[in-house]
Amino acid sequence: MNNLRRIAVIICICLISAFAKAQKDSIQIKQIYNEALTNGNSYQWLDYLSNQIGSRLSGSLGAELAVEWTKSQLDSIGLDKVWLQPVMVPKWIRGATEYAYIETGLGETTQVPICALGGSIATPPNGLKASVIEVKGIEELKALGKDKVAGKVVFYNRPMQDELIETFRAYGGCVDQRYSGAAEAAKLGAAGVIVRSVTHSIDDYPHTGSMSYGDLPRAQHIPAAAISTKGAELLSTLLKLNPDTKFYYSMSCRNLPDVESFNVIGEITGREYPNKYMVVGGHLDSWDLGDGSHDDGAGVVQSMEVLRLMKAVGYKPKHSIRVVLFMNEENGLRGGRKYAAEAKKNNERHVFALESDAGGFTPRGFSFDSDDRNFDEVLSWKPLFEPYLIHYFEKGGSGADIGPLKEGNKGIVLAGLRPDSQRYFDHHHAANDTFDAVNKRELELGAATMTSLIYLMDNYIQKPGIKMTTSIRD
Amino acid sequence: MNNLRRIAVIICICLISAFAKAQKDSIQIKQIYNEALTNGNSYQWLDYLSNQIGSRLSGSLGAELAVEWTKSQLDSIGLDKVWLQPVMVPKWIRGATEYAYIETGLGETTQVPICALGGSIATPPNGLKASVIEVKGIEELKALGKDKVAGKVVFYNRPMQDELIETFRAYGGCVDQRYSGAAEAAKLGAAGVIVRSVTHSIDDYPHTGSMSYGDLPRAQHIPAAAISTKGAELLSTLLKLNPDTKFYYSMSCRNLPDVESFNVIGEITGREYPNKYMVVGGHLDSWDLGDGSHDDGAGVVQSMEVLRLMKAVGYKPKHSIRVVLFMNEENGLRGGRKYAAEAKKNNERHVFALESDAGGFTPRGFSFDSDDRNFDEVLSWKPLFEPYLIHYFEKGGSGADIGPLKEGNKGIVLAGLRPDSQRYFDHHHAANDTFDAVNKRELELGAATMTSLIYLMDNYIQKPGIKMTTSIRD
Repeated sequence: MNNLRRIAVIICICLISAFAKAQKDSIQIKQIYNEALTNGNSYQWLDYLSNQIGSRLSGSLGAELAVEWTKSQLDSIGLDKVWLQPVMVPKWIRGATEYAYIETGLGETTQVPICALGGSIATPPNGLKASVIEVKGIEELKALGKDKVAGKVVFYNRPMQDELIETFRAYGGCVDQRYSGAAEAAKLGAAGVIVRSVTHSIDDYPHTGSMSYGDLPRAQHIPAAAISTKGAELLSTLLKLNPDTKFYYSMSCRNLPDVESFNVIGEITGREYPNKYMVVGGHLDSWDLGDGSHDDGAGVVQSMEVLRLMKAVGYKPKHSIRVVLFMNEENGLRGGRKYAAEAKKNNERHVFALESDAGGFTPRGFSFDSDDRNFDEVLSWKPLFEPYLIHYFEKGGSGADIGPLKEGNKGIVLAGLRPDSQRYFDHHHAANDTFDAVNKRELELGAATMTSLIYLMDNYIQKPGIKMTTSIRD
Repeated sequence: MNNLRRIAVIICICLISAFAKAQKDSIQIKQIYNEALTNGNSYQWLDYLSNQIGSRLSGSLGAELAVEWTKSQLDSIGLDKVWLQPVMVPKWIRGATEYAYIETGLGETTQVPICALGGSIATPPNGLKASVIEVKGIEELKALGKDKVAGKVVFYNRPMQDELIETFRAYGGCVDQRYSGAAEAAKLGAAGVIVRSVTHSIDDYPHTGSMSYGDLPRAQHIPAAAISTKGAELLSTLLKLNPDTKFYYSMSCRNLPDVESFNVIGEITGREYPNKYMVVGGHLDSWDLGDGSHDDGAGVVQSMEVLRLMKAVGYKPKHSIRVVLFMNEENGLRGGRKYAAEAKKNNERHVFALESDAGGFTPRGFSFDSDDRNFDEVLSWKPLFEPYLIHYFEKGGSGADIGPLKEGNKGIVLAGLRPDSQRYFDHHHAANDTFDAVNKRELELGAATMTSLIYLMDNYIQKPGIKMTTSIRD
């Protein structure tokens, strides 16, 4: 009987303490959201970054201005340390605005919107005109063989799959055309490639993005452009009417030698584990057509806001929390690799990293690259996020820039913010990725959601071999 | 032993049959989403409704064109019946564009954007100029009393609460100023009222909406306008600098006699329960400043699409499914009341109604006005919706137009589509509620989500006193 009573008392104490902890967390998280929504700074920051600085392609003036300005802003919010981490980055420049037209059999021409893919070589100075061979992908191209491809412009026209709910999956199903399409076509003797823009929207915006010639010798490189979806539909129709339809384009982009740039880093030093690091970040570089507000200005200002919010609500983290604004995610990932390499060199043990690089839309949750123990821990936090309409907690990818931290940080948990993705690819890498496409509240909700996750990770992350005693599931 | 075996067999059969049913449902729902996303018609319909017809205030030409055109579209999709249901509606017209300025103590004037609230009387022909008394709400006004209010323009300036995650709650916390502010101010002898626009955004759009003089005699009515949030902030600042700041506005709106309009109704007759009805609808009328794409063009075309999708995937419902495009939700609710009254008169037993009237944004789920038995049934469907990122199933309001069906249909389940609400009030009742603010995929996902709910309700709704045998939870 005495034993039973003791067990009952212990159970009660456990329940009460679990409840008290859950309540403490819920109060802390409410404070974070309140501050973000009523007194947030992410939207003003994004306004400046997008409208005063603008596009930030690696190696460009915009990128360097963004480095300076974000450092100055981090300096102003009272972090323990702020510094620049040098990194050599590629410098590709677009040159004059591209020009393209379709020439039908009767000699009529129709101009269509194109843009060079990042990393492409230029066309000859007077442009390139050739017959077109349309394919739905690389496999179809290979099946055609050299005879049918040599000397032609290869037109990759596989659209995104509209029926996929998660648009990043549809993106993943198409992007090989853009990234590897030129190299594969060049191997078959093509004169050039044009690729249907990777977007759901049928409109006039060409969407750029990185491409690679792989290990092809320089002499075999061919110019690669994206064509707007409307342009692609038109070209496809005209090709059906007349297979002899020709495509002309002229581009003056080129690759210059690497230049020095920087990751921008700020830190709140941990009060219990100053030598264990948690990272929150986005990438500071962008493509050059819009101002990169969604990709990834949003992730940059949200990551800065995470540390500002912690200061504002008076939360002193146990671990050292770093904001890292990575340079050169878009066309090289040099910043992400550099940060991980330096961390390894300096024996900085990283336990958690979170990236926001999927747009500034309403946050829906996170995807995790994590062991089961920590993922189960995360799932136990679901009730804390429900009042904020955050429901999505799935295993999956995290973010390109934080990926390199996996090597050298055994057991590190990686996470990616998952905003609503339906509108993202309408803007991605195109001239309409601009500030007006970002909603203030949606952006702020993302920052608060990220901060809440870091807060919970800071308190309850399960490190390899150590079971933290503070878990709310204890 | 024999008994145990029999029980085991029965359990197995139950499990297998439950699994088979869940799988059948999951396949049907996938078909619905696929059709909506790859071959949907809602976006094209909305394009026409918004860009060819435009705003549809009750009693306006636009409203009548919308009645004709939506009927013709319903006729074209092969429903069993399509008809118009006459209803008398109020006719309020805005007249010439409103004009307003703030006059500071030094005689300087600054123009600010305003619009008449729906139902307001005009100012005198030469406008109205008076001192301003700013209040944060009706209670504060009442506390001031006649002395401080008489002869003045009352300026209601309570903003939406930014920290509320669900923006409809923040809307609910402010909208009394707009609806009842004029009546309350008139009782204290005010000359007129201006009300801060009910939106989160700080911008130049005044947001209209309905207001009422309650039972005040006509002679006591005073003109009521909404002022843009930027205008409100400016006025508030100027009043702090100089309490003698004056406000001038001129409006020529007026109320005309009621006119005849119509609810537009289409039906697929049920194959098992032709005399039991399920309704899906939105409201066909809109305010007059934008083209009403989100409020409620989206709900209209999504509701039409629900029936089109059922036909397209070859689903023959058990119950009679009606799409009802209600007239006059915005300033009278006459259509909703009329539909319910006619249903009652004709002894049409309604078991379920769903409204989409919260914008065409990414659907997050539904709120339900339902008994526990059906709500539990709904909760059991959550796994079916998860692949479509639909997570929100809460008890709460449904929709204004379907509300009147409660009386006379005991046990009816009502539901409202809940799209992401963060951007909604940026556009609500303002000139920027336009087609370009609607995303095709988000709209289509909403239509598919609604259709899936109706499909499940059609199969598993728990009617009072009858336990359907087809429940997936059996």
